[in-house]
Amino acid sequence: MQSETTRVEAFSDGMFAIAITLLILEIKVPPPGPEHLAIALLRQWPSYLAFLMSFIYIGVMWINHHRMFTHIRKSNDVLLVLNLLLLLGVSVVPFPTAILAQYLGGPEQRTAAVFYNATFVVIAIFFNLLWRYAVARQLLDKSVNAAYAESITRQYAVGPIVYLLCFGLAWINVRASITLNAALAVFFALPASLVRRRQIPPNQPIT
Amino acid sequence: MQSETTRVEAFSDGMFAIAITLLILEIKVPPPGPEHLAIALLRQWPSYLAFLMSFIYIGVMWINHHRMFTHIRKSNDVLLVLNLLLLLGVSVVPFPTAILAQYLGGPEQRTAAVFYNATFVVIAIFFNLLWRYAVARQLLDKSVNAAYAESITRQYAVGPIVYLLCFGLAWINVRASITLNAALAVFFALPASLVRRRQIPPNQPIT
Amino acid sequence: MQSETTRVEAFSDGMFAIAITLLILEIKVPPPGPEHLAIALLRQWPSYLAFLMSFIYIGVMWINHHRMFTHIRKSNDVLLVLNLLLLLGVSVVPFPTAILAQYLGGPEQRTAAVFYNATFVVIAIFFNLLWRYAVARQLLDKSVNAAYAESITRQYAVGPIVYLLCFGLAWINVRASITLNAALAVFFALPASLVRRRQIPPNQPIT
Amino acid sequence: MQSETTRVEAFSDGMFAIAITLLILEIKVPPPGPEHLAIALLRQWPSYLAFLMSFIYIGVMWINHHRMFTHIRKSNDVLLVLNLLLLLGVSVVPFPTAILAQYLGGPEQRTAAVFYNATFVVIAIFFNLLWRYAVARQLLDKSVNAAYAESITRQYAVGPIVYLLCFGLAWINVRASITLNAALAVFFALPASLVRRRQIPPNQPIT
Repeated sequence: MQSETTRVEAFSDGMFAIAITLLILEIKVPPPGPEHLAIALLRQWPSYLAFLMSFIYIGVMWINHHRMFTHIRKSNDVLLVLNLLLLLGVSVVPFPTAILAQYLGGPEQRTAAVFYNATFVVIAIFFNLLWRYAVARQLLDKSVNAAYAESITRQYAVGPIVYLLCFGLAWINVRASITLNAALAVFFALPASLVRRRQIPPNQPIT
Repeated sequence: MQSETTRVEAFSDGMFAIAITLLILEIKVPPPGPEHLAIALLRQWPSYLAFLMSFIYIGVMWINHHRMFTHIRKSNDVLLVLNLLLLLGVSVVPFPTAILAQYLGGPEQRTAAVFYNATFVVIAIFFNLLWRYAVARQLLDKSVNAAYAESITRQYAVGPIVYLLCFGLAWINVRASITLNAALAVFFALPASLVRRRQIPPNQPIT
Repeated sequence: MQSETTRVEAFSDGMFAIAITLLILEIKVPPPGPEHLAIALLRQWPSYLAFLMSFIYIGVMWINHHRMFTHIRKSNDVLLVLNLLLLLGVSVVPFPTAILAQYLGGPEQRTAAVFYNATFVVIAIFFNLLWRYAVARQLLDKSVNAAYAESITRQYAVGPIVYLLCFGLAWINVRASITLNAALAVFFALPASLVRRRQIPPNQPIT
Repeated sequence: MQSETTRVEAFSDGMFAIAITLLILEIKVPPPGPEHLAIALLRQWPSYLAFLMSFIYIGVMWINHHRMFTHIRKSNDVLLVLNLLLLLGVSVVPFPTAILAQYLGGPEQRTAAVFYNATFVVIAIFFNLLWRYAVARQLLDKSVNAAYAESITRQYAVGPIVYLLCFGLAWINVRASITLNAALAVFFALPASLVRRRQIPPNQPIT
């Protein structure tokens, strides 16, 4: 069965928008105490870091999902299920984010960083499955040539590798792992990195 | 009165998207304690199981709602109210999910499993009411022939029966009931099961 | 300035959908205790009653908002602000609902019922302001004749009166007030009541 | 790359709608105590004030975002990232709102008011960056002439200045700062202030 992808995109956008906006609920108001409020707020830096990283990661995923569906023109039930799996991953993000916020800087931070990055490894894999399925089943728009599709496939393949690197590093050195996570977020937020990605126009032959 | 179903679909999608994304808020961060974080996370397996099952159930309901409204072309006030009743059921899901997450594996798990499945029995009944009303009042698209509509009616009738089975089993054996719930979720997540459902094209005569 | 009302409707739908779905977060999972879970769940009846009433009230408001904007074709800044005031009221609903859920049946239930109904009086007034402004400024579709607009104005005028009645009753007898609230919700949920409202077609002359 | 701005607007609307509706979750139900419920509710005035101000600020930002995107016709990756930065700011609002609600009227209210206004200074700056980028890169609709674009640029420049004033005042006198915040909210809610802003029609030459 082929149906328009419009309602799938609208539903996905809704879930991305909600998941990214719920992240803030995980940052708690420090209860009044002997400490100055400014100090109490500063001591919550792991919450802000976890929030910012997850916000950027989900934001970039949304931009990529948006772009992916500019190219996907047909839908089928497998695509719907693969998309729901991806959205399952996205909707889970507030939980590992809260875990990282709570445990970063403490004695259990390794487990928290491993769990946090494991989530993103899984999401990045779902992302690749969705795209590769759409390519393999020729659900793309006619205007997308094979070379362009291939170049996107290669770009998306970077995601799981990078998160796997952070995941691996977390076992050895948590600080290095989180630094790599933060660097990745900064890199994602630089539009240059996004611009660089689109050198081959989707509907021009590659010579 | 007849109006386009577009805004009804958009509103329904919004509520489905929010209900499914709120599910994660019911999974709590384990407070720091003498136990290792990894152990504490693993001990929360009932939360993950309840989350995953409810996520898949709502996801499948959304796919079916989506499909149902591909066929429904006209709306009226009764349809709006029946749809709101269905959405009432969907929006309630985070509550029985949290109950199951909290009590599964404990001495009160029977009540939790009964309550959880009762919710889905009710939702599945609302689902059938909505579809049967649309068929009876001829709110469907002209292209949908009677045999196809009938085949969908039979498919949707399975929902209440299956959840009723889980509900009944919960009184006898909670573990069996939850295993059936989980098997159902896995079955729903297999696209094959969805594909199999659409053997009669909506606008072809059945001979 | 005149602009399409499409984005206003989409934004309003989003807020209605979120407010109505957040209501469930106010129903808490009973903590494990000496009491049977079934009993503990039953003792939470004020939460369920408050949830159901607020769900139906918001649902009916959404249906009416939907209908109102089928007739409104032009927008301006005053309309945007009046609509935001209405949405402010809608977004507040989870708070008085939680108050009622917590205090109904206890010694402070009068204050809770008064506060609950005061909220809906205010929302119903905003609703009437929005509609009357649209009528007065001729923001309606050409197809809506004056008699039909007038008949809607009279219907909407019932809202503030009914909630004011519940509000007033709460000072005298809380049980009577809540019973009237519940009866109102049941009445709203009966499609007949909605059907009855539209006897004059919007674009037919009244003789 | 140029793409339609439709999906960007829909996603932004979703995040605005969710952030503004989540604000109510920060208002807590007073626990039963020796105090009368009415008194307990009245003592929560800082929560209501913070809620109302943030609601109006987000509402006005949405109206302005809406208007901005009526003029923006083309999109690119930098615009997407700048828009996500603005949405990051909007999604953060429930946190400083909860801080202000908790600490206003207490000994730590200065820090709370400073933090609250700092958030809005940053959001207003992101807002200006987004608009100025769209103007500079000529992403606007052909119908928008330079003089009109310039007049909007001047209007938006007021935002950061006003919030900076509140921010500065908070260091000297918290009460004056919050009074200015409240006055600003009332001013924003007066449609007149909005009407006054649009004296130059977007597509008429200025002589």
